[in-house]
Amino acid sequence: MGTTVTDDQKILIPPINFAMVDRGVYRSGFIRKKNFSFLVKLRLRTVVYLCLEDYPASCLEFLHSIGARLMPFGVEGNKEPFIDIPADKIRQALIAVLDERNHPVLIHCNKGKHRTGCLVGCLRRYQQWSLTSIFDEYRRFSGIKARFLDQQFIEMFDVKLLIEEMKLLKD
Amino acid sequence: MGTTVTDDQKILIPPINFAMVDRGVYRSGFIRKKNFSFLVKLRLRTVVYLCLEDYPASCLEFLHSIGARLMPFGVEGNKEPFIDIPADKIRQALIAVLDERNHPVLIHCNKGKHRTGCLVGCLRRYQQWSLTSIFDEYRRFSGIKARFLDQQFIEMFDVKLLIEEMKLLKD
Repeated sequence: MGTTVTDDQKILIPPINFAMVDRGVYRSGFIRKKNFSFLVKLRLRTVVYLCLEDYPASCLEFLHSIGARLMPFGVEGNKEPFIDIPADKIRQALIAVLDERNHPVLIHCNKGKHRTGCLVGCLRRYQQWSLTSIFDEYRRFSGIKARFLDQQFIEMFDVKLLIEEMKLLKD
Repeated sequence: MGTTVTDDQKILIPPINFAMVDRGVYRSGFIRKKNFSFLVKLRLRTVVYLCLEDYPASCLEFLHSIGARLMPFGVEGNKEPFIDIPADKIRQALIAVLDERNHPVLIHCNKGKHRTGCLVGCLRRYQQWSLTSIFDEYRRFSGIKARFLDQQFIEMFDVKLLIEEMKLLKD
């Protein structure tokens, strides 16, 4: 229960759409200054960042101060009809997330709904969750903003290719 | 990443509304036979069960087979205007959930929305999360079934009393 504190005064503010995904893996929307005292308690080693925009200097400084490393895998979110998330980049990001040397890791994009939802969905494919359960989790975070294309992306994600690439990296 | 498997064939089915709450703590709706192969991978030591109904024999048998212990804290869910969740029982359940000797622990009720949501909300109060974040998480699982009374229960939960009782138990 790493985030437990007994100090009477302090209120901790997790980033928007924050949740624990699995042992050593967290997800959220963008982190802001008011989240720092919460984030400290996660003892993060890595942040996997999925947007194309430069990381804000104040957040970089914060990561530096807690000894965490930024791993940027910038992608554009799925958008009908012409923009598709690049599967190879998500595969690379997922390899980073699955690598326990990077744990604890926080995955985040802007809102923690779509890009983060896609990456977590692919992680669940790797963990062999049923699609019903994967989509249910995806929609828990995206709500009325759920995207058909994101769910299709997750369904089509090539887990075999991921496993092959992970094997190559190990050899 | 405890639930990772590489077997090509098997699809794992988490219980309805399943999620990781914190290190060693999971939440869900009722567990069913089709969830057993998923649940095995969590290596549960304890199940904190929040309904009044007897636990089904097949589930009890399953828990026994994986060496997990059932801890029942049966309560009725909040219902306007006359039924209130008993705070003392939720406090006792929370003490069990916070006790690392019981980890990994799965908290569940029927749907994983209301009673489980109340208990997890009280856990977040103990962890000093802001109410906005607590309610956001509560609603992520309860959706359009979110209950005013549940959120009020979480807001009014007496964390100081919880901490006092935990101290007494330690002494």
